[in-house]
Amino acid sequence: MIIVGEKINTSLKGVTEFVRERNAEAIQELAVSQAELGADYIDVNCGTLVDEEVTALPWLVETVQQAVDSPCCIDSPDPAALKAALALHKGGPMINSITAEAGRYQEMIGLVQEYQARIVALLIDDTNGISPDAEVRIGIGCRLIEQLAEDGVPIGDIYIDPLIQPVSTGADMGNVALRTIRALRERYPEVHFMCGLSNISFGIPERGLLNRTYLAMCMAEGLDGAVLDPKNARMMSMITAGEALLNRDKGCRKYLKAHRKGLLV
Amino acid sequence: MIIVGEKINTSLKGVTEFVRERNAEAIQELAVSQAELGADYIDVNCGTLVDEEVTALPWLVETVQQAVDSPCCIDSPDPAALKAALALHKGGPMINSITAEAGRYQEMIGLVQEYQARIVALLIDDTNGISPDAEVRIGIGCRLIEQLAEDGVPIGDIYIDPLIQPVSTGADMGNVALRTIRALRERYPEVHFMCGLSNISFGIPERGLLNRTYLAMCMAEGLDGAVLDPKNARMMSMITAGEALLNRDKGCRKYLKAHRKGLLV
Repeated sequence: MIIVGEKINTSLKGVTEFVRERNAEAIQELAVSQAELGADYIDVNCGTLVDEEVTALPWLVETVQQAVDSPCCIDSPDPAALKAALALHKGGPMINSITAEAGRYQEMIGLVQEYQARIVALLIDDTNGISPDAEVRIGIGCRLIEQLAEDGVPIGDIYIDPLIQPVSTGADMGNVALRTIRALRERYPEVHFMCGLSNISFGIPERGLLNRTYLAMCMAEGLDGAVLDPKNARMMSMITAGEALLNRDKGCRKYLKAHRKGLLV
Repeated sequence: MIIVGEKINTSLKGVTEFVRERNAEAIQELAVSQAELGADYIDVNCGTLVDEEVTALPWLVETVQQAVDSPCCIDSPDPAALKAALALHKGGPMINSITAEAGRYQEMIGLVQEYQARIVALLIDDTNGISPDAEVRIGIGCRLIEQLAEDGVPIGDIYIDPLIQPVSTGADMGNVALRTIRALRERYPEVHFMCGLSNISFGIPERGLLNRTYLAMCMAEGLDGAVLDPKNARMMSMITAGEALLNRDKGCRKYLKAHRKGLLV
């Protein structure tokens, strides 16, 4: 399971100030704590600071990489900010995100190719936007994967985000994303699947319980990446358990190690 | 989700004595507490008391039904004990279990027909026993469902048990049962799926975590019944969450009610 630590995001409380003030120490603390708890990538997102994203995003990448060995997941829809950030990134980055929208795709694909980045691909196109229909999403996914492959992106570098939407706004939204992952995984077994989980529970109490339960469900269908807070011990425990249950943890070694460290809750 | 309360089973500590001594009060307490916590069926199993099962099993059914309205899941491989118990049962019983083994099938099918019982069907046949191969299990499942339907059992009265085996004895056992449920559910959308979960974690620490995580995974594939201890609040919470996530809980009403009662943990 690829864990992308979500905490360095200016939409989260406090982080806007850290970035505005270029508080490297605070940002690095967020990076180190996430890496220590098992983040494979550190997400960097300052999309709310529209005016200064093009300078703030590369600063975030440099600041994070001074503190940890983990690569960044560079999270922006702005090609100029992305380009500046990618130019400074050491090692193999991940970009979040491309879509099947013609304009967005064209803006992004060159950067993906140039930096040989892993790429998060959202199931959105110009005709449908974010469709509530699993079949439509599956169709967008197939076209997006084929196009990325045609443009030279290795299939194993593609991370499909099925776009989880709240069950409070559409009772079948949980099933829609599950069906989308299942169908695309059957067709493209080497493609990865990654998403944030918390959207599923928007507007409903006990969100952590819903998020965890849905995470296990998505893992059963093929989800092998998640954008989350690695401090969420119950979520991380469930991931560790899920890997053991799905034969992705040889001899349950990681599971047993986590148990010995007292991390399973 | 159909919850079968598992606590009245002579393989569990204390229950043997309750049954041997015909301690109705103790048995009824176990029945009431499970029903209050959401058990739809009360499992009764005294298979370890071989010599007296034929008298003890009907006593259990009568004793339980004096205390609760819930029907019993009558759990025995012995047709004589089953017959005596079914004769006393009020309302629609469930029988656990039939298999595709010719002898067992023949012994059981008459009772299923006579009492119009819901039937738990284990994926075992004479050739393969319990196969470690999902394809073999799926094949057994198809033959068993077709045979039961041919013998007049309504398809919605069939509860397939995919036979969960420990990942400690076969690393792919988690995937095998998931694949089995997925394939049979696609082929027979009206058939139900039910199993005990705890076998998956045999021999590994933090079993509750593994059992819960695996429950959510099985629900994503179509599991809609489980044999468990309704006192297990974390497992029950996950079921409630799972139903909301899979659009099996209109308006998340049960979920919100459980939340208001403080039951979600």
